[in-house]
Amino acid sequence: MIFASDNWAGAHPRIAAGLSAHADGFSTAYGDGVLDKAVYQRFNEIFECEVAVFFVATGTAANSLSLTTYNKPGGISFCHRESHVIEDECGAPEYFTGGSRLYTVEGALGKIDAGNLERAVERFAPENVHSGRPVAVSITQSTEVGTVYTLNEIARISAIAKQHGLPLHMDGARFANALVALETTPAEMTWKHGVDILSFGGTKNGCWCAEAIVLFDLERAKELAFLRKRAAQLFSKSRFIAAQFDAYFRGGLWLDTARHANAMAARLAAAIEDSPSARLAWLPQANEVFAVMKKAEAENMQAAGAAFHDWHRPLGYDGHIGEDEALYRFVTSFATTPDEVDRFGYLLAG
Amino acid sequence: MIFASDNWAGAHPRIAAGLSAHADGFSTAYGDGVLDKAVYQRFNEIFECEVAVFFVATGTAANSLSLTTYNKPGGISFCHRESHVIEDECGAPEYFTGGSRLYTVEGALGKIDAGNLERAVERFAPENVHSGRPVAVSITQSTEVGTVYTLNEIARISAIAKQHGLPLHMDGARFANALVALETTPAEMTWKHGVDILSFGGTKNGCWCAEAIVLFDLERAKELAFLRKRAAQLFSKSRFIAAQFDAYFRGGLWLDTARHANAMAARLAAAIEDSPSARLAWLPQANEVFAVMKKAEAENMQAAGAAFHDWHRPLGYDGHIGEDEALYRFVTSFATTPDEVDRFGYLLAG
Amino acid sequence: MIFASDNWAGAHPRIAAGLSAHADGFSTAYGDGVLDKAVYQRFNEIFECEVAVFFVATGTAANSLSLTTYNKPGGISFCHRESHVIEDECGAPEYFTGGSRLYTVEGALGKIDAGNLERAVERFAPENVHSGRPVAVSITQSTEVGTVYTLNEIARISAIAKQHGLPLHMDGARFANALVALETTPAEMTWKHGVDILSFGGTKNGCWCAEAIVLFDLERAKELAFLRKRAAQLFSKSRFIAAQFDAYFRGGLWLDTARHANAMAARLAAAIEDSPSARLAWLPQANEVFAVMKKAEAENMQAAGAAFHDWHRPLGYDGHIGEDEALYRFVTSFATTPDEVDRFGYLLAG
Amino acid sequence: MIFASDNWAGAHPRIAAGLSAHADGFSTAYGDGVLDKAVYQRFNEIFECEVAVFFVATGTAANSLSLTTYNKPGGISFCHRESHVIEDECGAPEYFTGGSRLYTVEGALGKIDAGNLERAVERFAPENVHSGRPVAVSITQSTEVGTVYTLNEIARISAIAKQHGLPLHMDGARFANALVALETTPAEMTWKHGVDILSFGGTKNGCWCAEAIVLFDLERAKELAFLRKRAAQLFSKSRFIAAQFDAYFRGGLWLDTARHANAMAARLAAAIEDSPSARLAWLPQANEVFAVMKKAEAENMQAAGAAFHDWHRPLGYDGHIGEDEALYRFVTSFATTPDEVDRFGYLLAG
Repeated sequence: MIFASDNWAGAHPRIAAGLSAHADGFSTAYGDGVLDKAVYQRFNEIFECEVAVFFVATGTAANSLSLTTYNKPGGISFCHRESHVIEDECGAPEYFTGGSRLYTVEGALGKIDAGNLERAVERFAPENVHSGRPVAVSITQSTEVGTVYTLNEIARISAIAKQHGLPLHMDGARFANALVALETTPAEMTWKHGVDILSFGGTKNGCWCAEAIVLFDLERAKELAFLRKRAAQLFSKSRFIAAQFDAYFRGGLWLDTARHANAMAARLAAAIEDSPSARLAWLPQANEVFAVMKKAEAENMQAAGAAFHDWHRPLGYDGHIGEDEALYRFVTSFATTPDEVDRFGYLLAG
Repeated sequence: MIFASDNWAGAHPRIAAGLSAHADGFSTAYGDGVLDKAVYQRFNEIFECEVAVFFVATGTAANSLSLTTYNKPGGISFCHRESHVIEDECGAPEYFTGGSRLYTVEGALGKIDAGNLERAVERFAPENVHSGRPVAVSITQSTEVGTVYTLNEIARISAIAKQHGLPLHMDGARFANALVALETTPAEMTWKHGVDILSFGGTKNGCWCAEAIVLFDLERAKELAFLRKRAAQLFSKSRFIAAQFDAYFRGGLWLDTARHANAMAARLAAAIEDSPSARLAWLPQANEVFAVMKKAEAENMQAAGAAFHDWHRPLGYDGHIGEDEALYRFVTSFATTPDEVDRFGYLLAG
Repeated sequence: MIFASDNWAGAHPRIAAGLSAHADGFSTAYGDGVLDKAVYQRFNEIFECEVAVFFVATGTAANSLSLTTYNKPGGISFCHRESHVIEDECGAPEYFTGGSRLYTVEGALGKIDAGNLERAVERFAPENVHSGRPVAVSITQSTEVGTVYTLNEIARISAIAKQHGLPLHMDGARFANALVALETTPAEMTWKHGVDILSFGGTKNGCWCAEAIVLFDLERAKELAFLRKRAAQLFSKSRFIAAQFDAYFRGGLWLDTARHANAMAARLAAAIEDSPSARLAWLPQANEVFAVMKKAEAENMQAAGAAFHDWHRPLGYDGHIGEDEALYRFVTSFATTPDEVDRFGYLLAG
Repeated sequence: MIFASDNWAGAHPRIAAGLSAHADGFSTAYGDGVLDKAVYQRFNEIFECEVAVFFVATGTAANSLSLTTYNKPGGISFCHRESHVIEDECGAPEYFTGGSRLYTVEGALGKIDAGNLERAVERFAPENVHSGRPVAVSITQSTEVGTVYTLNEIARISAIAKQHGLPLHMDGARFANALVALETTPAEMTWKHGVDILSFGGTKNGCWCAEAIVLFDLERAKELAFLRKRAAQLFSKSRFIAAQFDAYFRGGLWLDTARHANAMAARLAAAIEDSPSARLAWLPQANEVFAVMKKAEAENMQAAGAAFHDWHRPLGYDGHIGEDEALYRFVTSFATTPDEVDRFGYLLAG
């Protein structure tokens, strides 16, 4: 009953097997090996266009380097007030960019409100050296609270960004979960709706450590190569990431693991809905479930072996939370089993 | 006959098996898992004292964060003129420190000359805001040209550093190769001779991706935790590095792989010595062999399947290199086989 | 009728004369001259304690270096949402600190609300590497909208800062205007109520270019000397700033110029109150007046030679602004004359 | 007998008068005033082309922002081993660029040797992310040891830079002294021989504080405006710098003060040559004289009121310096009088 985070899971057996399968033999280092190149090609196919792929060590690195790619002096990037880049990266995006600013925009349940974004961007006169200037917009798909931007919502945000000459970054730490939730294609969820650069996460969805920056704007690729190396994110045995992505994509494993995680979230949500004493805060759209529970009950469940965290009330959730209650987050992953979920539901019903 | 670099190898079978063994099950993220903690304890045992261990993604990260740990505004760190930090890291140490300087010191065959270091440090008046101020000394063990500092040499450099209040950093990307070459202990090669912070590399010696900063000065540990996270070097599934180190240390695997690599270098050196047409530039002390060969012969060998690089003439090597000759570097690893070496020798003799 | 900004004025005649008086002769450079030291001593007297004084070129430099003095990796400094550091410095504080963050706190009419500050600081767990950590609180005295923190308000904010181990920075670009408004002493308005570091501005109050960091925490002085030099803010002919401060303090000139500017603001406010068609938005406390006027009337006044800017509606001002109206800012200075103000009032009444 | 530095002088009377003359009245702030614009136009005339002019607070700022203007990630700028940027700026260029590197090139008596520069630049493969990449060349005119690049030497260095696609920066802290030494024009000494960006110093030559970046490459001007503001180098009362430059250029004052300083250096050199006990180390070309003297004699002179500093032996000076001797530097300025020089000579002859 581990719902603490999808990064508490290990690696999917096929990922582990993939690593072992490629452990032997020699290969050019620093991303130029045969397997690396095959995987880059795989990315092209998946995204239905030529992309530049940069493996990095963490999602934080992917986000920070993505924003650095488009940064300018005095630069300001717009992100959701409760996004990962602002809440959980120790200021890495600001550090990597040498001090550019993240400007927070509000919106309900983890998603930037397009109207708010428009007003925020329009506050800045791009030639005014005093106030700084907009350089990028960043959205998270799926969001920190388990919601998913629709393609129309992405298009709307992208249109605002483009109107002001700003690139659109997508933090896709849970890209696959959003993708299968929308039943769309990687191309549709990105460049076809205006995304210029993507943090493509594999770690939370079954890999050990497989994060990549996918750059649709090939003219920036040469500079990003320097940015990555300078940021100490260029792996020598790059093959160990390529091998993970190779297994990840093979046979659509990544979609299966994401679908499974989402299904487990839905199953957990149903169990919570059915319980006499807990209630869903909002409907999960990907692999995160948020529920209001009595604190005493939460402690009982934790004592019984369930792992999950309490969570702050996000913007846009106005539901009642009693004095003796709290909001809790439950994350499912490829490794979550129906049995675990059912056992949780059984205990909760008890 | 792959002697291009020790990072062209993959992972040792026991490392791969270790990863697979730990793929299953759930674990606390971000370095606080049971296996992480067991491995930290293993480091304590290996270094015979309590150390703080920080897993990072690359050797460049380990070096850059080590130097950042001790940096001050206007800081100047002393390193060898041909060291990895100055030659091969795209300025990452300067970037991570926000602009502090690497000051190069000369010395024969990759090793800082203690007298030169002393003169270099003494050029600076530590209170003078104009010139900047010394903040650290960094040495590489084994060096970029396959030589190894003796314990006495480390002690001498450390004494100079200490006299000026400077910490001593060791870039140990090839720590194990030096360790077995000296037939000493990790404690002797580090803190017992004045090393304050160590980049401990496992990648080149049989891991996929296993680098750690070993900090002997525990008071800096809290800050380094922030530095690492801010630099996007904190792995969520930290267990995947712990598992590699677990296998790496188990049964002394790491010493065996290093001994093997060094033995292969010695075997290769002997083959070169025996050859009619190539000659050793200097005696290898770890797992790198440098030889002077006719360019035509080198091309023949490469055409026959040997991979190795030409190299610039290092400080302190004054041997003759003819017009039609060049200096070449050969690196061996855990994955180098006697057969490969012998085949190379056979072809060379041909 | 120039009310555009107090930095549209030139230099007070006694400042200009002071510069000329000290133009002759030789003096040690870089802040170690006889006049420099006499002025440092004058600061001690004015602040009734030993302080460390660092001349810098701009208020932005004073603020940015003040925040850098107390920064740590992942650092977060709290400031008002409409403060100068966040609105008008092109991200210099973030740049100087290498990427630390300014966290905005709301409060009415330019002043941080203590309760909001407390909640903001308490959101952070200081040991949590993910979220970053509080490192400073910054207030502006007088504020961007012409209001002044009372000593009790400073004490309250300082108490919150101290409770969390945070230093308190005061942006005193208009320090003198606030000081004479409160009829208090420099010591009371700063260290006696918990201020640790002060941006002390002379430029807006009659100097050409005279800004200083006043550091009450002498242990930080040595590091700040390096920070200033590294930031290219150490003047060689430092005497030219010392000479300005010498004249500024002599005979209490600085208090006279500030009193004059404030009196002119009060006179202007009275004229606006008396006018049939404009109204004060809130009462001015220092040398800035904010009024609501019809846009057409504002244009007429500007056509008649008045210089002033429109302004965004600040937090805490809920007064009605009609469709055909806007909010305007009027700044007075040492150079504002009663005649100018009266002429403005006369035209407005017309 | 103050020969310690040209920045120990104050301001020329006409500079002081110029400041006073412009102290009155109101002016647009931040560099957009009438006087600012008139001075920018004056720069156009002086340089015989349209240039972009950016006033900054210090020579260090001018150099650091110039190099930042052309920086790229992993950037390496080439400068002389004993240049001001590397020796006396506390790492400001590296700090401003976010960690780019200064690569030192040797050459006799303060001047980069073109052959050495060529070899240094050619060490780098511009596409290699590991080694970093060349981004600029910086020369100092006149140099730190009082020598002057000829126009041919500038052309030669510029040609090497251009061949590798690198801009050429000139640190002109003592621009005027070199200019009159060469009896050439500002245009000839800069863009006509390939200089792209210039630190134009007025402070050492009679101003209080008047430094400007002169950018010949107008396409970079927009970005430099942001760089300057972000670096806290944008003056609000910019007029106070403009007024200095206005007086500086008026009637060729700047050339007169430079000629005077150089003449005083020549006079001092002659006195030293005539003395029984001191000797010139090399011939002065601008306003700095270097001489070898007995240490005891130097102390006697200092006791008699002369101010001057000892100096390290520069590259390219191989003259004998006895055990009881040292090398000393003497700097003259607009404020140096023939009487002072003669008195020094008289005492020396004594």
